Amino acid sequence: MIPVLINFLLTAREISVITCTQNISNFTTEESQTTIDLASNYNTTCLEYTNIFIPNNVTCPPLNETDPYANDPPRDSRLISRSIKPYNGEPPSNLLLEKFYTPNEIFYVRNNLPVPCVHVGNYSLEVGGINLTTVQLTLRQLTTLFSPTTISAVLQCAGNRRSEMNRVKPVSGTKWTGGAIGNANWTGTNLRDILALAGFQRGNYSPDVLNTLHIQLTGLDQDPKTGTYYGASIPVSYILDDNFTPLVAYAMNGKSLTPDHGFPVRAILPGIVGARNVKWLQKITLATQEAQTIYQLEKYKAFSPSITSATVTQEDYNNTDPIMDLPVTSYLASHTDGQIVENGTILVEGYAYSGTGRHIQRVELSQDLGSNWILAEVTERTSKKLRRNWSWVFWKRNVSLSVGRNEIWVKAVDSGYNQQPQEIKDVWNFDGYLNVAYHKVVLNAS
Amino acid sequence: MIPVLINFLLTAREISVITCTQNISNFTTEESQTTIDLASNYNTTCLEYTNIFIPNNVTCPPLNETDPYANDPPRDSRLISRSIKPYNGEPPSNLLLEKFYTPNEIFYVRNNLPVPCVHVGNYSLEVGGINLTTVQLTLRQLTTLFSPTTISAVLQCAGNRRSEMNRVKPVSGTKWTGGAIGNANWTGTNLRDILALAGFQRGNYSPDVLNTLHIQLTGLDQDPKTGTYYGASIPVSYILDDNFTPLVAYAMNGKSLTPDHGFPVRAILPGIVGARNVKWLQKITLATQEAQTIYQLEKYKAFSPSITSATVTQEDYNNTDPIMDLPVTSYLASHTDGQIVENGTILVEGYAYSGTGRHIQRVELSQDLGSNWILAEVTERTSKKLRRNWSWVFWKRNVSLSVGRNEIWVKAVDSGYNQQPQEIKDVWNFDGYLNVAYHKVVLNAS
Repeated sequence: MIPVLINFLLTAREISVITCTQNISNFTTEESQTTIDLASNYNTTCLEYTNIFIPNNVTCPPLNETDPYANDPPRDSRLISRSIKPYNGEPPSNLLLEKFYTPNEIFYVRNNLPVPCVHVGNYSLEVGGINLTTVQLTLRQLTTLFSPTTISAVLQCAGNRRSEMNRVKPVSGTKWTGGAIGNANWTGTNLRDILALAGFQRGNYSPDVLNTLHIQLTGLDQDPKTGTYYGASIPVSYILDDNFTPLVAYAMNGKSLTPDHGFPVRAILPGIVGARNVKWLQKITLATQEAQTIYQLEKYKAFSPSITSATVTQEDYNNTDPIMDLPVTSYLASHTDGQIVENGTILVEGYAYSGTGRHIQRVELSQDLGSNWILAEVTERTSKKLRRNWSWVFWKRNVSLSVGRNEIWVKAVDSGYNQQPQEIKDVWNFDGYLNVAYHKVVLNAS
Repeated sequence: MIPVLINFLLTAREISVITCTQNISNFTTEESQTTIDLASNYNTTCLEYTNIFIPNNVTCPPLNETDPYANDPPRDSRLISRSIKPYNGEPPSNLLLEKFYTPNEIFYVRNNLPVPCVHVGNYSLEVGGINLTTVQLTLRQLTTLFSPTTISAVLQCAGNRRSEMNRVKPVSGTKWTGGAIGNANWTGTNLRDILALAGFQRGNYSPDVLNTLHIQLTGLDQDPKTGTYYGASIPVSYILDDNFTPLVAYAMNGKSLTPDHGFPVRAILPGIVGARNVKWLQKITLATQEAQTIYQLEKYKAFSPSITSATVTQEDYNNTDPIMDLPVTSYLASHTDGQIVENGTILVEGYAYSGTGRHIQRVELSQDLGSNWILAEVTERTSKKLRRNWSWVFWKRNVSLSVGRNEIWVKAVDSGYNQQPQEIKDVWNFDGYLNVAYHKVVLNAS
């Protein structure tokens, strides 16, 4: 396939799909990247190119040969650093409860590699692959050729709550507590529309072939040692499901993405583990195989507790499904394990979430090691739309504490009646992924 | 909408879609209903109308006013009766392991009402609803106007393994052990094709409306007291997902359906709880609300352990999701709890299954109450197709038993990394639904 100029391809379509009529351009260029808050109704508000991107005034500093991380952006001081090079940071979990839509500044950052600096004027996204025409989309085209779509969706790292798993038996990886998760309103272009532009039609593939295809996503973040880019993929079966809304996102809570979150565009694959939501997106490829990266083929797979990093085989990797849809989880975020609190009645609060578009049906607490369960009140949710809910819920409940040690368990049930496992040891895996066991918190009441 | 004769509507289509060319009609009428085995390749073999249905020689006996169950069909003696009126029966679980595709004769039977007798010559299926043209399809039309589709799919009752839940705390409902599940090859017409014939096109509905619609399914089985029919529904969002293959099925393992399994046609909604797979289908209706039956609005919902049949409120019913997709489960089917076996190494075997098209990733056993887990070998599966696997797996593993009491735990992990709960008490609900907790079996070795 030879690349063709999208402008040439799409003159007619360009006219028909520019539906943005509202003028919200009363901002200076300086304001645009960081301060424009378009948090009103995204369905009627158009995120215009000039409001979210600064076309020409990003000057990328020269690469620092001795320290590829030297040009990483500054981070909010409220983030707890879990590693510096690459940077990984999470907010304290009680901060997460302050806003249903996690502020961009404290949204957890999970980088595998140095943060790439993107010159917006030079940026383009390449789209192509099996039976497709290769097209290059500039930022202006990405944001104006298509109607914008906004969805509320959680991003969660596969290693969220790994530190609890690490206490059961040591695991590798960033020792996240419960803050490697966040919820945001993401605005972008539906990935299906972009694929359609490159000629994707399910009728172009035999049914047998169609269901073996993958959509490979490549970032601009590069491994300083190997020169290879970060990349991951999702099976095309997701794209065949209209209930799924995959985005090439250019805005997060009404603002352009920050460098740490993938500026200028990233994949948002709602319900799917963070690792596939590739940041600094440079390329989308329809292919006959998964992304051929360690992030797809080796990392982000969770093995049986009987397999260790010393015993894992290539066959184990081959036979184990990549983590995609996130299973149901819940977290008591208002307090920390071992915290000293006052005796009496206290309010405990937290979040609960499930992937695959499932909503949270209920959240339950136990104060007697599971003999009895009481319902928490779900205080905030976006919807109970079946197969189309990508957001978390917030929950709360007053509990009475006795003087001394109080153990509180929390678990959630999703709309598919999926359950959380009780014991971390039963789902332990050497990389410490998907600790979705009951959250058990000890509070010491004085 | 006024009903129109499908024959009139579809003259042209009828010609184009009759793709059955193989002549397999060398059977007598007497043979056709019960003995024709078309278990060869369904993709190339056409299940012709005359081979699976007896058009005119079913004579329905007169209703017995004093006993509406008097005309129920005879059942295989290997089925264990759990109730007679209505009839509910399951095979011993070790019998399930003999064939990957459960023989029709021992496939569990779950009836809510008397079995209706259907005179095939008079039968038709009505399809209609919001923005659709109402059409009536005779059996001949159902089997010849459309290309047949065959899928391997499990059916499982929501109450499978209820007897274990009942031992934790009493629950209502049929006390199934682990046999209220079966796997079969189902052949029929894709429900999407039937809806399309009645004019269903997603573009005919605003996106907001589309996702609030339901497909109501009505059976011919009638409540003798109220005169109402059995009915259930699924949200239309399922139909929007091409990964999902819903059937109006007329054959089970290559034979016509038996009276107990919905003769002449039933819904097969793969991955979805048995109760929505309506038997003896008489009507399919696209509607703005769920089926207004107790089976949809009250039964087949699982509440928190904190809610009892005495305390449940209308609000609880309204706020609780109907059971649809079945969560991951596993079962040690070769032995029964408390069984006496010989000391030494024995082979244990079982099944594992998950709904929503998810395949089983692995099955694990523990002989030390979860401290260590070992992998079972998956001996049989249909596929690992993501989002399109509707079948169960069989698994086996040699285990060494010590003299005395041996407790074996089994659990499975599906391709979405969903987990089973460990403790029944944590998922207990007063109707005894969805006991998908680890299966724990005690074997006494002599």
